[in-house]
Order: sequence, then C-alpha cells, then structure tokens
Amino acid sequence: MTTDVTGRCRAAKAATARMAQANRAAKDAALSVVARRLEEGSAEIVRANAADVEDLRARGGSAAMLDRLLLHDARISAMASAVRDVGALPDPVGEVISRTTRPNGLVVTRVRVPIGVIAMIYESRPNVTVEASALTLKAGNAVVLRGGSESLRSNLALAGVVTRALGESGLPEDAVVVLDSTERTDVERLVQQVGLVDLAIPRGGEALIRAVTEQARVPVVQHYKGVCHLFVDEGAPAEGARDVVVNAKLSRPGVCNALECLLVHEACASVVLPLVLGALHERGCELRGCDRTAAIFPAARPAKEDDFGREFLDRILAVRVVRDLDGALDHIARYGSQHTEAILTGTLAHAERFRREVDAACVVVNASTRFHDGGELGLGAEIGIATSRLHWRGPMGLESLTTMKWIIDGEGQVR
Amino acid sequence: MTTDVTGRCRAAKAATARMAQANRAAKDAALSVVARRLEEGSAEIVRANAADVEDLRARGGSAAMLDRLLLHDARISAMASAVRDVGALPDPVGEVISRTTRPNGLVVTRVRVPIGVIAMIYESRPNVTVEASALTLKAGNAVVLRGGSESLRSNLALAGVVTRALGESGLPEDAVVVLDSTERTDVERLVQQVGLVDLAIPRGGEALIRAVTEQARVPVVQHYKGVCHLFVDEGAPAEGARDVVVNAKLSRPGVCNALECLLVHEACASVVLPLVLGALHERGCELRGCDRTAAIFPAARPAKEDDFGREFLDRILAVRVVRDLDGALDHIARYGSQHTEAILTGTLAHAERFRREVDAACVVVNASTRFHDGGELGLGAEIGIATSRLHWRGPMGLESLTTMKWIIDGEGQVR
Repeated sequence: MTTDVTGRCRAAKAATARMAQANRAAKDAALSVVARRLEEGSAEIVRANAADVEDLRARGGSAAMLDRLLLHDARISAMASAVRDVGALPDPVGEVISRTTRPNGLVVTRVRVPIGVIAMIYESRPNVTVEASALTLKAGNAVVLRGGSESLRSNLALAGVVTRALGESGLPEDAVVVLDSTERTDVERLVQQVGLVDLAIPRGGEALIRAVTEQARVPVVQHYKGVCHLFVDEGAPAEGARDVVVNAKLSRPGVCNALECLLVHEACASVVLPLVLGALHERGCELRGCDRTAAIFPAARPAKEDDFGREFLDRILAVRVVRDLDGALDHIARYGSQHTEAILTGTLAHAERFRREVDAACVVVNASTRFHDGGELGLGAEIGIATSRLHWRGPMGLESLTTMKWIIDGEGQVR
Repeated sequence: MTTDVTGRCRAAKAATARMAQANRAAKDAALSVVARRLEEGSAEIVRANAADVEDLRARGGSAAMLDRLLLHDARISAMASAVRDVGALPDPVGEVISRTTRPNGLVVTRVRVPIGVIAMIYESRPNVTVEASALTLKAGNAVVLRGGSESLRSNLALAGVVTRALGESGLPEDAVVVLDSTERTDVERLVQQVGLVDLAIPRGGEALIRAVTEQARVPVVQHYKGVCHLFVDEGAPAEGARDVVVNAKLSRPGVCNALECLLVHEACASVVLPLVLGALHERGCELRGCDRTAAIFPAARPAKEDDFGREFLDRILAVRVVRDLDGALDHIARYGSQHTEAILTGTLAHAERFRREVDAACVVVNASTRFHDGGELGLGAEIGIATSRLHWRGPMGLESLTTMKWIIDGEGQVR
C-alpha cells in the first residue's frame, strides 16, 4: 500500500499557519477533547488494536513485541491522562526568551514560535501516536506520523480521535496526518520533503534512526542509544553506591537511561564491589567484569572487549576497575554514547571536573542515571531524549519543539 | 590541488576537547595575540593578498569582486579590531540557561557548551577567515575553513596568524584548519564528515548555499537571501516613512537586510508614494511599481511579476499598493524569504497582528529593516543571519555557536 507522501505533507504544511496562531485556550480545549474521546472510544481503539495484535501474533511476533503493541483500557486511560498533562503545561508559543532595549531605543525581543511541520517516525508503541501529537500540537506545530506497519490500524484509530478533536475544536484537522502506508520507501520520501517538513524525529531502534538520518534531506534530531556509565569514586559511601547502582541498572533495564557499565576506583573496589555487585547478583543481574573485578567478585563473568560500549538493555552490567578519575573519564570518552554519564563522589573537585569534562547530553552527580527523563527533570513530558548536538540536546519537551523569532520595536529609527 | 579533507577534520576534532575546556582568559589571550599579529603582519598579509588579487584581475574578475577580495592596512586593522571586540564579549561557555530544584532535591542545571567542529564554507571576502575563527574559537569550538579559491593565499596567510596565536597561547593550533584546496568536490567531502564535523555554515551566494545544503550529511544552518518588505500602513507619517525607506533601501543596497519591496496601504498611497518614491528617485534608485504605483508616481517603471519576491541587492525597489494589512500579509507570505519584514504603523492592533502573523526570522515595527544585524541587536558580532528554523534563526552570535548540557546534582537520589 502506498500513499501520496508529498500530498499529505502539503496538507500538514497548509495547517501550520492556523496552528501557529492558535491560542492556548484553543489548543488546550482540543487536547481536552482528545483525552475524553480516547476514554469514550476505548472499545473501538481496542478493536482496531486487536486486529494488529492478531496479525503480529500470526507472523510470530515475540512476547515483548506483542506487549509493546497491545492496548487495553488501562493503557488508553494512561494516554488520556498524558494528554491532559500536556494540556496543563504552559504554552511555549509567544514565550519571551530575551528582551533588551538598545541605546537607540529599539526594543529587541526574542520569542518562541512553532517550528512548522514535524515528522515523527517510530516503531511499535502506539501511545507515541497520541503523546507525540499532543506535544507537537501544544507547541503550535503540525505533525506527520509514520508508525510501524504492525501498528497501522491502532495508529489510525488513535490519530482519528485526535483529528476529530481538532475539527471539533475549530483547529485544522490536517495538523495531524498519518501516513497510512507500509512501504519503507515512504519513510525515505517523508524525510526528503524539503520545504514541507521542517524537522524529522525518529524514535526507535538504532537501525531505524540511522536509516532515517542517512536518508534525510530535512533536519533530524537523533535519539541514539544510551551506553550509560556510573563511576564510583574513592570515598563515595558503599551503601549509597549500592542503592544508586541497583536503581540505575534494574529499575527498568530496557530503557536508554539505564546503567550499562559500572566503573569503580581501584582504591575502594575491594569494599564497593562486593556490596554493589552482591546486591545486583542476588537480584538476577548478570555481571561481566574486567580481571580485577573478577578477582574481587568471582561470580562476575569475564567481560569481553565488546561488552564495554554496549547497550545491553537487559539485566546485564559491564564492570571495570579504573585507576582514578582520569581512568574513568578516559573510559567514558572512549566507550560512552554521550547520553547519560554519572559519578558518585564526595570530592568537590572531582564532581566539578566530571561535570565540566564529560561530553554528554546529561551529566549526573550523586544520583541515578534514570533521572535523565523529561518528566523527572521538570519538562512535564518529553518526545524523546536527543543525543545529537544541534537544535536540542537531552530531553525534548515543548520548548524543543519551537524555534525563535526576533521582534524589533521602534519609533522610526534608521541606521 | 586536493587535500586530505578527512585528515584535516580529524585534526580539528582532536582539538575540540582542549578547546571546550579552555577558560575565558586563555581564549581572550589568544584573540588578543591574533589582533596584534594581524597588525604586525599586515605587510605579509597584503603581499599574499596581492597575489590573489593579481590572479583574479588576470582572469577578468569584476571591479566588485576585486574590491571584495582586496585587503589593505585599514581593512586589516578593522579585522584586528573585530577580533578584539569578540575578545571583549562574555564567554558563552558554562553560561547557565536554566536552573531548577526538583521536589526530590535534585538540582537541574542547563549550561551552554561548545558544539564541536564547525565547517565554514564561504566566498571571496577574506575577513570571514578571521572573524569566523574568532567567534567559533571564543565559543570553544574548532573550525574548518573553506574559503573561495580566488582568496586561498589571503586566507592561508590570515589563518596562519590565528594558528600561530593559538599555539603561542597554549591552545591547540588545529582548532583552526584551512582546507588549502581549490577542488569543489572537497566542499562536498567536508560537509559529509559525519562524526567529525558537527555543523556546516555556508555563507555567500544562493547557489553556494543550495549546493552545500544539498550535499551535506551534517547539520547545516542556512543563510538564504533576504527579500525584505516594508509595509506603510494607513496613518503612518509620510515623512517618517520616507526616512525609514530611504535608509532601508539605500544605506547599503547590497546586503541581505536591505529593503527589496515596498508595500503601501491604498488609503495613503497618494500621499506616501510621491514623498517616498520621490526621495528614492532623486537618489538614483530605480523603481518598479504595480499599475497603481505607476499611476501615482509616473517615474516608476512597470514591475514585472518576477520583480516581486526578487532580491535585487542593488539600487532597485519593487513597489506595490495593497488594499490593507491583510493584503500586505498575503503578499509577504507569498513573496517573502522569511528573513526581515517590517511595518510602519500607528495602529496598535496592526503592529500586534504583524508581529504575530508574519513568519520571518525578524519582524520590525516602525524601524528600518537594516537593524536585523548581530551588532545592532546587541550580540556584539555575528557569523551571519540564519533563515533556517532549526537550532537557530536570525543573527548568529556566540550563543548560536553553542549547544547545551544538562547537569543533575543530587545526594544519592534514586528513582
């Protein structure tokens, strides 16, 4: 099945002018209708989803894939609640970034304005359809959605709810457009719509993100993997280290801010490792350590070279003893993915060096890597975590879905 | 002549870690040495430039091209002075963008950090070599410079001054790298160095910018043309309109923030046009007007359709009478280049609609379009004016050459 990608993008582009002018009340009203209609239309959504789930099961989808795809009342309620949360956030559009008065009396104001058309390319979780729509709409944008083919019927049902809510609220229905195609080449065409698509945001596995980045002719904000490290410095309390590491590794091993590699200062390894690795081991976490780790904690399997720099997304942790802070910084510079890097230390100068010298979207001192998350950092909601450097870096909330406009107010000044 | 583009970019990349850690004193000291060495080495630079100028003359370069290329003591002094101005600007690196304390006690700080390696691709003016280097270095980046082939010797002489100043000041010399090649394919290779080049900034004619944008695999911030409009609303004082329009069109017709099209409300056209167009006409400006313009001011030639939306960069102005503010907004939406759009009005509601509804990097109310400039807006210096929407929009000063890093400070918190 193919679709008229350019036509759909053109429709979304045509909706941007009205979306950019929509005030907060109109956008929040539409989001509130979305939330209500999701709950009211739950049965219909579950029905569409059941067809997707059945197909995926017939094609031999794994239990994990089926679970990611599955929608039921509780999950639909959670989506409705997420949409209401976005509605409660302040409107970023029109927000003043800076305002100065020049010596000649000109008043220079920088304000946030919407970006325009945002293309979301994502994989199986259908909740992205709703949550990405809510965030992009609240920031005054239009969105073109291209979800995974296995969730097409679910996505169409969910996007239909959003589209109808927009229409009901007097906003342009084309501000949310779904590419109802399963052709891979349509993704390529989508990210090559220069002049119609202003930004592409791929979310999903590394292969999807690399493919989109390579094909794109429009700007892309990437969400690559999180190979997150935590360095336990000399003098950090061992019990504290145990609690933070267990949380960082095991509270949700399958996410990008989960810990993948533990680094321990050699001066405290013999105290810290038994306590920390013992706690992980008894919770069923597999440990892959360097020689010195294995010497202190024999239950650790020997790590292979490619266990370092690897995103396990599982109950597996790589462990290395390093000679000092510099050893940790070197390891992170070599193996890190510039996503989230943490240190546990009581030494002020070490905290300061780590903050300054580690090149990552998020640097954490004395806390779990799991805090690198839009909700936890106070953004209210996020569309993902950017590991690229341009436009945005870190958790992408509403602000990241805007650009700026300069306004000069004068009284007839000339230069 | 070809060059090892990847090798040069790798050298620049290797310099980024030290540049990112350089404190303000070190960077400013290096800039101060650059300024001094430019003045001291003026004769040598002029000699290198003379060879470029001679070649261009022999190849039949126009007077305008020769003038753009030419360096003499006064221009070199101006460069030195621009470098000192950059030195005097605050260091953007480490600047706190936001800081909040979460309910769980985590302190979340967003700080500015350098982008990394910036590739500058530009045409004939050799001062870009120095001014772009100064700005990118001050923001803690490394820069790869690819100027026009006609200015290669000038650029090498100028970049040599910067490189030596970096070395003398204890900063990595490879933070400024010149591609000493005249092959066009090297530009293509430069903007495809994914992982080595973090951002490409093309400066020059539209053809150059389009070519770079099309070839690039790294993010690009574009500086497209400025088809700037000014709308004189009903009730705006005619004398004020004359002064602003003369300034916007004629103070420097060859730059991107110069006025290219005047729109006048039909209710005041018969008063405003004679005064404004008369002043332009007597200063040697060619006028190309719509039928109604020509009826009021017969010295105006009839405009062809393609005179609207055109960047003349010359003493030529397109003129159209519009029925009202909506007519002006429609014209600007259709023909504007989203660079700089201005209104002269005394009606508050019209100023507000214009500010809100015009989609441009800079919207000006009651002042000349010429104020859309980094220096005029208080940025101190600019590397250009971005018309693209992502990462940055408008005048690119030091802040635009940085990205962000999130820092989380805790006391052992887990999620």
